[in-house]
Amino acid sequence: MKNLLDGIEEVLLMGPGPSCVPDEVYKALAKPTLGHMDYYFIEIMDETKSMLQDLMQTKNPLTLAISATGSAGMEAAFVNLVEPGDPVLICINGVFGTRMADIATRLGADVDTIEFKWGTPVIPGNVKEKLSKKKYSVVAVVHAETSTGVKNPVREIGDIVKEHGALYIVDAVTSLGGIPVEVDNWKIDVLYSGTQKCLSCPPGLSPITFSGKAIKKIQNRKNKVPNWYLDMNMIMQYWGGKKRVYHHTAPINMLYGLYQSLFLFFQEGRDTVYKRHQETHEMLVEGLEKLGLKMLVEPSHRLPMLNSVIVPEKIDEAEVRSTLRKKYKIEIGAGLGPLAGKIWRIGLMGHTARKNNVKRLLDALSEIIK
Amino acid sequence: MKNLLDGIEEVLLMGPGPSCVPDEVYKALAKPTLGHMDYYFIEIMDETKSMLQDLMQTKNPLTLAISATGSAGMEAAFVNLVEPGDPVLICINGVFGTRMADIATRLGADVDTIEFKWGTPVIPGNVKEKLSKKKYSVVAVVHAETSTGVKNPVREIGDIVKEHGALYIVDAVTSLGGIPVEVDNWKIDVLYSGTQKCLSCPPGLSPITFSGKAIKKIQNRKNKVPNWYLDMNMIMQYWGGKKRVYHHTAPINMLYGLYQSLFLFFQEGRDTVYKRHQETHEMLVEGLEKLGLKMLVEPSHRLPMLNSVIVPEKIDEAEVRSTLRKKYKIEIGAGLGPLAGKIWRIGLMGHTARKNNVKRLLDALSEIIK
Repeated sequence: MKNLLDGIEEVLLMGPGPSCVPDEVYKALAKPTLGHMDYYFIEIMDETKSMLQDLMQTKNPLTLAISATGSAGMEAAFVNLVEPGDPVLICINGVFGTRMADIATRLGADVDTIEFKWGTPVIPGNVKEKLSKKKYSVVAVVHAETSTGVKNPVREIGDIVKEHGALYIVDAVTSLGGIPVEVDNWKIDVLYSGTQKCLSCPPGLSPITFSGKAIKKIQNRKNKVPNWYLDMNMIMQYWGGKKRVYHHTAPINMLYGLYQSLFLFFQEGRDTVYKRHQETHEMLVEGLEKLGLKMLVEPSHRLPMLNSVIVPEKIDEAEVRSTLRKKYKIEIGAGLGPLAGKIWRIGLMGHTARKNNVKRLLDALSEIIK
Repeated sequence: MKNLLDGIEEVLLMGPGPSCVPDEVYKALAKPTLGHMDYYFIEIMDETKSMLQDLMQTKNPLTLAISATGSAGMEAAFVNLVEPGDPVLICINGVFGTRMADIATRLGADVDTIEFKWGTPVIPGNVKEKLSKKKYSVVAVVHAETSTGVKNPVREIGDIVKEHGALYIVDAVTSLGGIPVEVDNWKIDVLYSGTQKCLSCPPGLSPITFSGKAIKKIQNRKNKVPNWYLDMNMIMQYWGGKKRVYHHTAPINMLYGLYQSLFLFFQEGRDTVYKRHQETHEMLVEGLEKLGLKMLVEPSHRLPMLNSVIVPEKIDEAEVRSTLRKKYKIEIGAGLGPLAGKIWRIGLMGHTARKNNVKRLLDALSEIIK
């Protein structure tokens, strides 16, 4: 019997996530499994929580990792905070804003959207105007739009939402660990992320945090959360409190991986990590422009960890990706939705954001598209 | 900075899951991460699906692993098959039947339950009688009640449900990989499991299968599935079809682990694995009885992989568990719900089900409670 795992090659992951995983994280994943109620495992959970609070710049006690991937973090944010009929405003300038609107609609919320051209950022003034016309209970925005490479002005929108009095949900799946995220300063009520982007841990968990105001909403819901698996009323008793109450079996080894990722982040130092992302991004853009390629997003709104490159006319974008993968063992991403076929998405996330990786990609690209 | 992962000890996991993980599975978890749309990763997914079909004894094309733990499999089964107002019958004889009723109720179903004493099995005749009085769209039962150690007569109930015309949901979280599970022969429409029980992979995924009849129901729903993350209409396009459509980023390395677990299962051979579970169970029961301990469940309804032992009077059950964990590095489980403080739950799941492990536990117990 042939074992396919024996044929897995090391691929340089420069797509929109997953990113490259450091050896220390692989080793962490392979540590002996402990029970989900084991006293030593609970110490690891507590320390993970504390590192997540530090990373997210929040004092929120309800800070933890959801036992599923980043999209489940989005689901958890909405399913806990939104009840049928609740007026919700979603800012949309890419796939992930669109997904938020889909989730909120499925939950029976009264969903309004405010849309911006893909590749451009959300404009706070427009959000303010929208809020002046209707009372919303929740406003949501994506910090780093992975589908376009745009950074949205989360801090500025936070001030507006706070004044309005709504709960503020922010998607930080791609931003967390690569650029500053300041939950408390930015007045965010729920922020969630994923492990497979700038944290450089394989996919499988969604770090998330809830403010006191968000918890109050959850505890005073008219109806039970219509999702047992993601009901924070129960999950908070497993992740906190004096006596831990069993809810579901946590993904133990994935949590080891997240712990190690966070450990490496703080070992390297927050500022150094952010600087590394910025510098490799600048090196990549410079190199791409030398090859005659153009970026989709204006410089002032670009994310360092997700670079959208316009595919030149007459180039078969899928063939370039396929050659990169098969000949050079490098993965880059395709465009999504209206940008499918029009852009490549080059990730510089976490462990991937290294100058030698940028050089390897630029060398390969210059051979392919010369 | 101290790294807590350095202090993780190897614990013999003889609780209700997670179970002991073979070295080959740890190694699989630490294989290089590939992209979730990578052609080679899709080969691994396809082979995983094929092994799951073989393990579950089904031809269902929609057979895959949900990107979250076993409880999310339960959530996925109900949230896809049930719409508000649908009449649903849940058989309850433990915690996990109760959880099913909770989930179905949150989804707005018209939930009836048929209850049996914890520690005793569901009686098919009673289910038949219940079905003769009301038309149900879904009937659900737990195969292996992890909270009590009882095996329910899934095959017999399947015949009755089929005659009635309802969809049949079966929880095989603890049974799959330890005793026979025959999805097609037993007329099951949705069956889900977990990786951390008899498959001996760490927790994090939920293998699941849907019959053609179940898919028809999902495709003809009046409303969208009120759970984006678990909506099978979208997930089936990622796990099948000619062109894979991105839904969410799958937990790549966890899927390597599941692949390896299934590989080991078929390498050892189905019959040998089931025999090993049965023989270690018999050895355990014999040893426990020699120590003067009594089993909760009658012999004919006992699960080999989950053994409920009545805690003798005058024994502090929590102290015994704590001594086992701290002095002997063995984990066993406590009772849940009405059985809390009254039973221990000893797991013999997958890799844990070995005679040397049984001996180690019996020796430790005899020292502690002598």
